[in-house]
Amino acid sequence: MGAVVVKNGKIIGQGYHKKAGLAHAEVEAICAAGKYARGASLYVTLEPCAHYGRTPPCVDKIVDAGIQKAVVAMVDPNPLNNGKGIKLLQEHGIKVEVGFCEDEARKINQPFIKYITKKIPYITVKTGQSLDGKIATKNGDSKWITSDKARVVAHNLRRFYDGIMVGINTVIRDDPFLVSGYPKKPITRIIADSRLSMSARANLFQKPDPVIIATLTQALGQETENRNLLATKAKILEIRENNGQVNLYDLFKKLARLGITNILVEGGGTLIGSLFDYNLVDKVLFFIAPKIIGGKDSIGSVMGKGALRVDKAVKLKEVKLSRIGEDFLVEGTVKEY
Amino acid sequence: MGAVVVKNGKIIGQGYHKKAGLAHAEVEAICAAGKYARGASLYVTLEPCAHYGRTPPCVDKIVDAGIQKAVVAMVDPNPLNNGKGIKLLQEHGIKVEVGFCEDEARKINQPFIKYITKKIPYITVKTGQSLDGKIATKNGDSKWITSDKARVVAHNLRRFYDGIMVGINTVIRDDPFLVSGYPKKPITRIIADSRLSMSARANLFQKPDPVIIATLTQALGQETENRNLLATKAKILEIRENNGQVNLYDLFKKLARLGITNILVEGGGTLIGSLFDYNLVDKVLFFIAPKIIGGKDSIGSVMGKGALRVDKAVKLKEVKLSRIGEDFLVEGTVKEY
Repeated sequence: MGAVVVKNGKIIGQGYHKKAGLAHAEVEAICAAGKYARGASLYVTLEPCAHYGRTPPCVDKIVDAGIQKAVVAMVDPNPLNNGKGIKLLQEHGIKVEVGFCEDEARKINQPFIKYITKKIPYITVKTGQSLDGKIATKNGDSKWITSDKARVVAHNLRRFYDGIMVGINTVIRDDPFLVSGYPKKPITRIIADSRLSMSARANLFQKPDPVIIATLTQALGQETENRNLLATKAKILEIRENNGQVNLYDLFKKLARLGITNILVEGGGTLIGSLFDYNLVDKVLFFIAPKIIGGKDSIGSVMGKGALRVDKAVKLKEVKLSRIGEDFLVEGTVKEY
Repeated sequence: MGAVVVKNGKIIGQGYHKKAGLAHAEVEAICAAGKYARGASLYVTLEPCAHYGRTPPCVDKIVDAGIQKAVVAMVDPNPLNNGKGIKLLQEHGIKVEVGFCEDEARKINQPFIKYITKKIPYITVKTGQSLDGKIATKNGDSKWITSDKARVVAHNLRRFYDGIMVGINTVIRDDPFLVSGYPKKPITRIIADSRLSMSARANLFQKPDPVIIATLTQALGQETENRNLLATKAKILEIRENNGQVNLYDLFKKLARLGITNILVEGGGTLIGSLFDYNLVDKVLFFIAPKIIGGKDSIGSVMGKGALRVDKAVKLKEVKLSRIGEDFLVEGTVKEY
């Protein structure tokens, strides 16, 4: 969410919502404008809140600051607010316009809209693959398919997510550190590990950010040494079984309850394949290197069951194509909220 | 190969070499210029020939037309010519400049340079795949992954090749017609069919262009009914065995001897995988639809053995990226001659 305060055609304050629990965009913008906010107009990508959530109502701040007009791109889909903020502003004599650049705002607000209305995090899938769709050779070598430049771009994306998620095969094969894309903002590392085969010595425990291991309820039956050790280093979430794997929908529901609003899934092919099989993907980011790995038994970026017919394949919307150094990036959305 | 005749700064004739056996570019351009060619300059992408091949020497035509100056992009790599044409022009008092835009000419002339110097056709691989590198679902459905627009572009490419080639699995799965990209120019359809399991009722026999079936020598041991029937409709080439498959290098050598200078390989994944495994690919054209098919057992665009290490993957050079309707095309070269 973003906001700007405008007076006499000039921006005198701007802000954006950095993280759940921190100041909302409009509060940041008004604070930045200071006393000059009096008589100014406020532009916001989402209706200001009228309720106490993790922060006090923004409407109070807007009224107190003496804002004269509020231009709101879209009504808050959160049933706790949903028009109440606009009504309250109007009751305080503030002129409110709703719907300016609404389409653009809806696109920006997709993760929030999904999280608020479906109570499930927004799921973005990221792959770093060869032109022929491989993320590793048949003996598991995966370093490095995409260029340094593309990997830096991909890494920096992490700052926009509350969580990054990988499957256990990726942890075993690559032993990644999974560090935050922005040192000051911690990120929750989520590992789908149905059989709890994770090592307590995995590199990701070298970093302070929280780790959540999602495993099958039955995998917790015996209190093994490894399980006890892992429990000292990570939060272990017990999840229902689905075809021998963690039920990903259940997992996401639980993660949403833990306050995780959006997740970047970075692989591997098995996890990403399952996400597509169960129709849980909202957006994709395919970083593609102009290389051919080939091989019937190489590891593909999207495995799982797959579509049985081409007309049942997932068609991306809002497709964007860009070049990053020698590689390129295909972005697209799967679902719209 | 292309040529233009220029007089007083104006192009007065142009031509290009359409097909082996037809007039060379410079002859076409000079004919187009007619009597005005006298005293004009000739620009050619390749040294004019001094020898009798399938057509009479171009040098004679240039001398007879009264061309005053010849600007030659590159020396002919064909040992039959290779500087002789230039020398002969000079002996007839024609001023010759060599090397103008040589890099660009070499790129255009790659298939010819390879064919002439290696005596093997130039191999271009084309795929029409999903973003995750699939060309069919696990039960073989492949229609249609890319859009109509991309398929038309891909189809029209065939006019630039002497042959198009597919593996037997593609013939069985898709039963394609494999028609020429340009009705007036026939194209040879080449099928890699190690076990001679091709049906004589395949759609491609509905079209008049020639068919070559490449099969293992031992598959010809018994004179079966099917083999006899196929022999009435296609040329059957016996090829040495390599790991249970047709030795593709041997096949290409034989095809070169039949006058096939360049081949567009259109799939499937097994044939293209083998071509990469045996380092026989010169150029690739990946048509990619913004779709996800997924599936561990779906059919990939490049199968075969594959690279064992990422640093052994094939790195494309001269990579070009373009959008074709909703799809996109990645072009790149593997080898340079």
